[in-house]
Amino acid sequence: MTPPSRQALVPFVSVDHMMRLVLHVGIERMMVELTEAIEADFRRWPEFDKTPRVASHSEIGVIELMPTSDGQQYGFKYVNGHPSNTRQGLQTVTAFGVLADVSTGYPVLLSEMTILTALRTAATSAMAAKWLAPAGSTVMAMIGNGAQAEFQALAMKAVCGIEEVRLFDIDPAATAKCRANLAGRGLRVIPCASAEEAMLGAQIVTTCTADKQYATILTDNMVGSGVHINAVGGDCPGKTELAPAILHRAGIFVEYPPQTRIEGEIQQLDPNHPVTELWQVIAGQAPGRSDAAQVTLFDSVGFAIEDFSALRHIHRRLQGTGLYQDLDMIADPDDPRDLFGMICRAEAAVSAA
Amino acid sequence: MTPPSRQALVPFVSVDHMMRLVLHVGIERMMVELTEAIEADFRRWPEFDKTPRVASHSEIGVIELMPTSDGQQYGFKYVNGHPSNTRQGLQTVTAFGVLADVSTGYPVLLSEMTILTALRTAATSAMAAKWLAPAGSTVMAMIGNGAQAEFQALAMKAVCGIEEVRLFDIDPAATAKCRANLAGRGLRVIPCASAEEAMLGAQIVTTCTADKQYATILTDNMVGSGVHINAVGGDCPGKTELAPAILHRAGIFVEYPPQTRIEGEIQQLDPNHPVTELWQVIAGQAPGRSDAAQVTLFDSVGFAIEDFSALRHIHRRLQGTGLYQDLDMIADPDDPRDLFGMICRAEAAVSAA
Repeated sequence: MTPPSRQALVPFVSVDHMMRLVLHVGIERMMVELTEAIEADFRRWPEFDKTPRVASHSEIGVIELMPTSDGQQYGFKYVNGHPSNTRQGLQTVTAFGVLADVSTGYPVLLSEMTILTALRTAATSAMAAKWLAPAGSTVMAMIGNGAQAEFQALAMKAVCGIEEVRLFDIDPAATAKCRANLAGRGLRVIPCASAEEAMLGAQIVTTCTADKQYATILTDNMVGSGVHINAVGGDCPGKTELAPAILHRAGIFVEYPPQTRIEGEIQQLDPNHPVTELWQVIAGQAPGRSDAAQVTLFDSVGFAIEDFSALRHIHRRLQGTGLYQDLDMIADPDDPRDLFGMICRAEAAVSAA
Repeated sequence: MTPPSRQALVPFVSVDHMMRLVLHVGIERMMVELTEAIEADFRRWPEFDKTPRVASHSEIGVIELMPTSDGQQYGFKYVNGHPSNTRQGLQTVTAFGVLADVSTGYPVLLSEMTILTALRTAATSAMAAKWLAPAGSTVMAMIGNGAQAEFQALAMKAVCGIEEVRLFDIDPAATAKCRANLAGRGLRVIPCASAEEAMLGAQIVTTCTADKQYATILTDNMVGSGVHINAVGGDCPGKTELAPAILHRAGIFVEYPPQTRIEGEIQQLDPNHPVTELWQVIAGQAPGRSDAAQVTLFDSVGFAIEDFSALRHIHRRLQGTGLYQDLDMIADPDDPRDLFGMICRAEAAVSAA
């Protein structure tokens, strides 16, 4: 049988290859690069096709497709969210994604994105903090010490210069896991007995908890002036982490308002409550933090452009590493009209073998 | 490094594996099985989440995602349409798809779908003809002898008992290819010099041409009473094959009206023009052909449920064949909250190696 041509083969980055690529580049270096890649795409935000994610909801979870395109390349991510999965030893969130060439429609990359989503979410948080947190921030409170926590801590270290991370989780085992994973990575790691204790002296407060109900991880009186809040965990309808009073005090920055108003912390507010699109701050079209006393909030829910940036960066970074496997994914008859003939020739080859 | 667990591995059906599976089952048997699978899902149509495809258009083509779910399983297809691709020796349409478990959100199958789409499109046509074509149909005209033609011919033979296929294409080379591929498969294959000649004595007329502009493959005076038309080629805005007068005479049957009114032949009609949903005929909720003289039209554009049925059937049919490859696609740490720790352990393993 004729082997498939180059264009018929799609490079696939497995979980193992993604881990090796991250280790090859270095996790902090990867965070810096991803932040730069996402920032470059936020700067040209108007060039992208944008649509809220396409969700299929069931009683116990959601499966979503997140497509976008810049006119040259097209990307989408498949991602699920099933909070009860952990009870069966499964991931709450798993993901994979595809990058394709708009001019032919042919995929050019298939990649695991469970790890890559963790990386890009942390890189996006660090990017927002770089633009919004008070100057000279060195201490971050990390409320919620689950799967995303270490990624957030290292991205904030690599991109924003955070030196101390103060950990709190309602489950001490999660805090212990996070502390152990962060040991020896150049951060002061302080386990705390309460959210209040974690927030002592923190200029940046990151919330990343997994409850799927209206929760109040932060109350108004916990948030001092000048703090930057990075709210990562509230990311679907009915799932929020902040008391509404905080939202009324804060300058609120979002990714894509039509999506954030449904999924983010601001679902608790009037649909006309003013928010600033983060890309506008980065592109110099809107002010960021107004003064040292302002409470700023990045109401992060995750947007398709971040996945697109991450896939493109991985695609570039793969070159020369061999950290992928070619998949025979695209049917490629010699004569494009002769798809059936390709099967006939396979038949002849199988018979002859 | 600990190998990934069973749930972290996603079976992948490559193009080569798909061809071998089709040959293993037998192409006509596969058409019959796919028709049965699609028909079973059309019968329970109201159980499905339905949404028009999510399209990203560019000047020279389109990339689409087609998701659906029956509440137990979720499926989507990625498919492009780039008519100019053939000039570069590439396929106009390529596709792949994923089947997932709604209860966990984990993918259970990744498959090439360029070949599978050709199979399911032909099976859907044959299913429609089985319900709508005149009783005792034995002759089909096949106008347009490109990549889909042989699949249509064999599905109509296997499912509807077609004995003679009359071929016409504006490019005689396409007809010659189609004739050669169909030789020895139990069909009388008659190459014709015009569409009119191809239609002589045909009870079923299938149009499957690739022009992306309003074309008139069939004019009103070519279509005699009692004929069933299977219009496959008109499947996107601005791409149609039939003269409007035919549409005004015919009983029109469609897959999903909100999509067909945009993409199908009926984009030429008033948006309120009456059409019948094919699933209602199959489920006994609407009449099919009214009498032997009625012209019936299946205005086929392709719908996500057909892809879902095809993916589910392939998933069942794979069992025991070994015709797939497991992909390490889902990150699977022993403790689901310890995604970062999985990378740390990979680091230790790489260092030790």
